[in-house]
Amino acid sequence: MYLLDFVGVFAFGISGGLVGVRRHFDIFGILTLAFVTALGGGIVRDLLLGLTPPANIQNLPLVLTALGAGLLTFFVEGTIAKLRRAVLIADAIGLGAFTVTGSLTAIANGSTGLEAILVGVITATGGGVIRDVLAGRPPSVFSRELYALPALLGAILTDAAARFGVLDIPVVGRLVVWGLVVLVFGLRLAAIRFRWKSPTPPRASHE
Amino acid sequence: MYLLDFVGVFAFGISGGLVGVRRHFDIFGILTLAFVTALGGGIVRDLLLGLTPPANIQNLPLVLTALGAGLLTFFVEGTIAKLRRAVLIADAIGLGAFTVTGSLTAIANGSTGLEAILVGVITATGGGVIRDVLAGRPPSVFSRELYALPALLGAILTDAAARFGVLDIPVVGRLVVWGLVVLVFGLRLAAIRFRWKSPTPPRASHE
Amino acid sequence: MYLLDFVGVFAFGISGGLVGVRRHFDIFGILTLAFVTALGGGIVRDLLLGLTPPANIQNLPLVLTALGAGLLTFFVEGTIAKLRRAVLIADAIGLGAFTVTGSLTAIANGSTGLEAILVGVITATGGGVIRDVLAGRPPSVFSRELYALPALLGAILTDAAARFGVLDIPVVGRLVVWGLVVLVFGLRLAAIRFRWKSPTPPRASHE
Repeated sequence: MYLLDFVGVFAFGISGGLVGVRRHFDIFGILTLAFVTALGGGIVRDLLLGLTPPANIQNLPLVLTALGAGLLTFFVEGTIAKLRRAVLIADAIGLGAFTVTGSLTAIANGSTGLEAILVGVITATGGGVIRDVLAGRPPSVFSRELYALPALLGAILTDAAARFGVLDIPVVGRLVVWGLVVLVFGLRLAAIRFRWKSPTPPRASHE
Repeated sequence: MYLLDFVGVFAFGISGGLVGVRRHFDIFGILTLAFVTALGGGIVRDLLLGLTPPANIQNLPLVLTALGAGLLTFFVEGTIAKLRRAVLIADAIGLGAFTVTGSLTAIANGSTGLEAILVGVITATGGGVIRDVLAGRPPSVFSRELYALPALLGAILTDAAARFGVLDIPVVGRLVVWGLVVLVFGLRLAAIRFRWKSPTPPRASHE
Repeated sequence: MYLLDFVGVFAFGISGGLVGVRRHFDIFGILTLAFVTALGGGIVRDLLLGLTPPANIQNLPLVLTALGAGLLTFFVEGTIAKLRRAVLIADAIGLGAFTVTGSLTAIANGSTGLEAILVGVITATGGGVIRDVLAGRPPSVFSRELYALPALLGAILTDAAARFGVLDIPVVGRLVVWGLVVLVFGLRLAAIRFRWKSPTPPRASHE
């Protein structure tokens, strides 16, 4: 599970760094975007749950992974841009890992049901929203291929599995957790592959 | 009081959803904007007061009200836009309700005076600011007809009423609370009706 | 130390107010920008450390200083704009003071090392980032002369000084704290004077 966290943090860090490079921010801005994209969702999760200081600002290996990803985009943005597919796959892994760990953290702190679901989705999507706000663009989660929906489904199922005691069964529980991560990951990849998009409103009057 | 909360959440949810529809966000973006506009001010209130997890992410009826309002804008934005007047009135009710409940929550948690006043204003205006930041536009509270000032006045009077023990008197206290909500509501409506605006600076040099 | 806080709050308040005036916000928007720029970094610091309600919303003199600075920009923006140099110097004092007090607050609450460093930098730069997000512009800390780097260095040295017990020595400790503030201040002034900038990425592919 811990390994997945690193993959997620690295992928989200790359995604934040790339946005910073394209906005012509300086190295500090790029590292900051990598930091908040990778660790911001988890920081908001901990603030909502009253877990202070947030684990993500105490964990040196995770912070270095996020900053390392940012540094990489600074130096080899062009190469990474060509690896678009690999970045999307890593980002989908992060989405799955953060959804499940976010919900599990909530549940472990006594927040089940609605709270666990909302916290899971916020953990998975919050970093990207902060990234886009700092970069001055509309949150990409509001308009691209299904992103929040796989997270929402994963969070609901994680809460259900915990509620029915499935996660307490020694080996099965662990397998279910991994299955949930793979499910969110797979749904996200399918959404990209088949261009599944959330519906947009039919037509809007002008403001 | 609890009923007023629902009216406020519904009205703020409509306001958030409308902005999302006009920005051509997808259904998830629209529901998110409805959620943060309606419940974001109260979430920030609870984070400032150390009340975690925030009540608004635990309250299923309130969350469903906010999301229902967002869903409504998704389907019938055009009709709602024509009901502009009704939306403004509901929003003014929300402003009054959130100001008073925000300050009262602060006072109930031992934060009187300056804190109660600031928390009241932040509860009432915070959701709209988050909405505008996510939608990539300047906070409307910074430029339209008086919005924060009625909230500020209501929060100051709520704190004063609590300080002088008025709110502890059985029936009178309840009446005063309702009177404060009506006062903020009425001032906001008057501001819209008579186009009262906050002063803007005379002339600005260029950056 | 407390005096420095006031100088910092005043300078940051001016900086926030100026942005509001130039964005043609109304008086409430200008005062809000002055407030969040001056006090927002410290509020985020306290939320991260679990210190609620945040000290900055309880401290009437500090709040009045921030609002007074905002009011000043409202009335005499043109004059202040000419005093650009004085504003930059005051801002650099604020940067130094907030970095050191931010890290010291973290350390006093048991958050040493990585946390103290991150909290110091966030305290010093967070208010400006919130200001820029509310004003709809990219965070200036991401692109101008060295700003975060002096803060980062100051926070690292503050943590190191605390770790080696230097700050506990009666007179020396106090001198070291002042020395650290002056160091951050001096580095920032030198960065402005000699136009030291953080490196930007060589070339970016297009999104």
